[in-house]
Amino acid sequence: MSNCIPKGFKVGGVISGISKKAGKKDLALFLSEFPATAAGMFTQNVAKAAPVVEDVKRLKKGGKFYGVIANSGCANACTGARGMKNAVAMCASIEKNFNLSSGSVLAASTGVIGQHLAMDKFYIGAEKLKSSIGVSAKNEDDAVLAVMTTDTVIKKACRKIKVKNKEIKIWGCVKGAGMIHPDLAGLAGGLHATMLSFILTDAQIDSKTLRSLLEKSAEQSFNCVSVDGDTSTNDTLIILANGASHTGRLSAADLKRFSAALNEVTLELAKKIAKDGEGATKFIEIEVKNAATAAGAKLIAKTIATSPLFKTAMFGADANWGRVLAAAGRAGVDFNPDKTDITIAGIKTFRNGAPLDFSEKKAKQALLKEDIKIAVDLKVGKAASKYYTCDFSYDYVKINGDYRS
Amino acid sequence: MSNCIPKGFKVGGVISGISKKAGKKDLALFLSEFPATAAGMFTQNVAKAAPVVEDVKRLKKGGKFYGVIANSGCANACTGARGMKNAVAMCASIEKNFNLSSGSVLAASTGVIGQHLAMDKFYIGAEKLKSSIGVSAKNEDDAVLAVMTTDTVIKKACRKIKVKNKEIKIWGCVKGAGMIHPDLAGLAGGLHATMLSFILTDAQIDSKTLRSLLEKSAEQSFNCVSVDGDTSTNDTLIILANGASHTGRLSAADLKRFSAALNEVTLELAKKIAKDGEGATKFIEIEVKNAATAAGAKLIAKTIATSPLFKTAMFGADANWGRVLAAAGRAGVDFNPDKTDITIAGIKTFRNGAPLDFSEKKAKQALLKEDIKIAVDLKVGKAASKYYTCDFSYDYVKINGDYRS
Repeated sequence: MSNCIPKGFKVGGVISGISKKAGKKDLALFLSEFPATAAGMFTQNVAKAAPVVEDVKRLKKGGKFYGVIANSGCANACTGARGMKNAVAMCASIEKNFNLSSGSVLAASTGVIGQHLAMDKFYIGAEKLKSSIGVSAKNEDDAVLAVMTTDTVIKKACRKIKVKNKEIKIWGCVKGAGMIHPDLAGLAGGLHATMLSFILTDAQIDSKTLRSLLEKSAEQSFNCVSVDGDTSTNDTLIILANGASHTGRLSAADLKRFSAALNEVTLELAKKIAKDGEGATKFIEIEVKNAATAAGAKLIAKTIATSPLFKTAMFGADANWGRVLAAAGRAGVDFNPDKTDITIAGIKTFRNGAPLDFSEKKAKQALLKEDIKIAVDLKVGKAASKYYTCDFSYDYVKINGDYRS
Repeated sequence: MSNCIPKGFKVGGVISGISKKAGKKDLALFLSEFPATAAGMFTQNVAKAAPVVEDVKRLKKGGKFYGVIANSGCANACTGARGMKNAVAMCASIEKNFNLSSGSVLAASTGVIGQHLAMDKFYIGAEKLKSSIGVSAKNEDDAVLAVMTTDTVIKKACRKIKVKNKEIKIWGCVKGAGMIHPDLAGLAGGLHATMLSFILTDAQIDSKTLRSLLEKSAEQSFNCVSVDGDTSTNDTLIILANGASHTGRLSAADLKRFSAALNEVTLELAKKIAKDGEGATKFIEIEVKNAATAAGAKLIAKTIATSPLFKTAMFGADANWGRVLAAAGRAGVDFNPDKTDITIAGIKTFRNGAPLDFSEKKAKQALLKEDIKIAVDLKVGKAASKYYTCDFSYDYVKINGDYRS
């Protein structure tokens, strides 16, 4: 993908030393030259990291924003009053270095919970950022690399739309492979996981509209992905819109096209999270269809997506549809198993409450692929929902058995 | 433990061939010579196995019962009308072989979901049972072995109380190592897991009282244990009380002592499940104390107990208290992290919202033990709850990656 940073933005990432991995980029900046409207969604975890608490405060206050400073290697979560002071100091340092008004920078952190940010190292990194941000594909990658933890690939996405012969770009990136079960909420409401996602656009959109578009977009993307069911203390999704495309205010029709493009960006990023899930060998899409309600369909799809027994069966390429039905059955949603059909990787395994004969050999072959679709047809209504996840492998246990060392 | 089968009961287990493992005992009978009162609690999963549906029907009808026939190797779940017919035929076969009234035997199954019971093999086993039940320790073990699937040890427990110079015995056994997250309910209400537990007593107790004692007992035992968070289609807990101790009706004081003894039996069995959890290397007890409500404390303890990130950290002997707090924070219960303390294996790691310095070396040593206690002190009220679980290991993935083959 060629670089796609929207007009008026610069991004970059540097090595500060906050992360203990030698030579690992660990400090990223996403900066607008112009004041931008902003919207954010954050974890609903009761134990919110310091930068999350600070961002919520700043976004509630309102006004324009210039950027987001983000680090990996330390989550600055469960760090008490000292953690709050450090989150504010992160923002203040960038505001000072780039001559921005106080309160106009947001912060995000990811990494180990319960450790204090090494501020001496942070300041060295913040200084380096002055000369390390730009608009090239390398700048993009540096920024994304700097927020990655157990991620194995750079996850970014971009869409462009034409408005009045001018181009509007939407660029987004996401970090997250474990502790992934976003349940993002807007300032009032809900995201799960340590996922950090930053979306930049040069569209001109007022902050209220931006918030509503972002919430709708997260609901069909980040809030439909789970790696391990564990909702993080740090989940953060922030969008900045700086208007530098100079199209002026968008018409209702253009706003609709913008919204569709934004949904594509967040869905592409959400799927990339599941594909890069810790230890994942397979990407799994679960669709629950013909349900009574969309909320019920989503709850059933989510319960299957987070079932360790289902996920280990997928790792073993075992068409164990019984585990799909058992998970569906404990979702707390009423349905009739005797009317239910289950299809695994294209193979019909269960129809109207009874098992079907199928070739275990063919099923195994189908499940050895990296991209698996599960369909559960409840045949009671017209609502449907999709959920994205990955399998549960030896490597998941390995990666998380001693993450801190 | 010496044998402890209560008066008037005989138990046993045989090889029928239902299980595909050669030479594996797979059919158990728990039988009373005298008509007994009975109470049962079953999975709340929407997809209930055929024997669960049949047992609920029989218990609702009421009357006296003589026994429980149980098999391993096939769950008879998600098997439609044919499965229902087979569950009834299981009971009828025992009723006929032992000249018992129709409807007086209950059934339970565990094993692979979605396969039909091999009834020809079942009948061979049922015939063998005629001459294979008794009261010896070997009979006990045979019965328990016959319902085991991935269990690695025989799990049974026994208590005795004296009433009017006579002895009342309570004997119980349980099977279950995976798909364990009982959320048992009474006939009206909730159990999670494939756990099968059968409790026999020679006390004389009316069925209404028996049901109430069983529900109270399950609530502090089986409903507080999770191996993997997956609630089964087959969870079954049945108690039979045949009155053969000849103490007559119990006084309120004696009933209280009986209830305490029953609670000890179910708690001992529940802890044994967690200790023998699939792939488990550690037994973990999580206590949430000084909470506002007992329900809130239990929900927080349960969320920690089912967090894959917490459980893999325990496998890695990593004192990652941040994952304890992150899991607590997503339980949906409001509390103040800034007032919370966390102790892991006796080591204070977090106090009043801030991390404490502790020796990682000592923590590692403490966590290499097989018996781990986690305490979360919320300091907001006086309610407390305990939950029992195990760690998440490579072997869990291995055992479940290809369970069916």
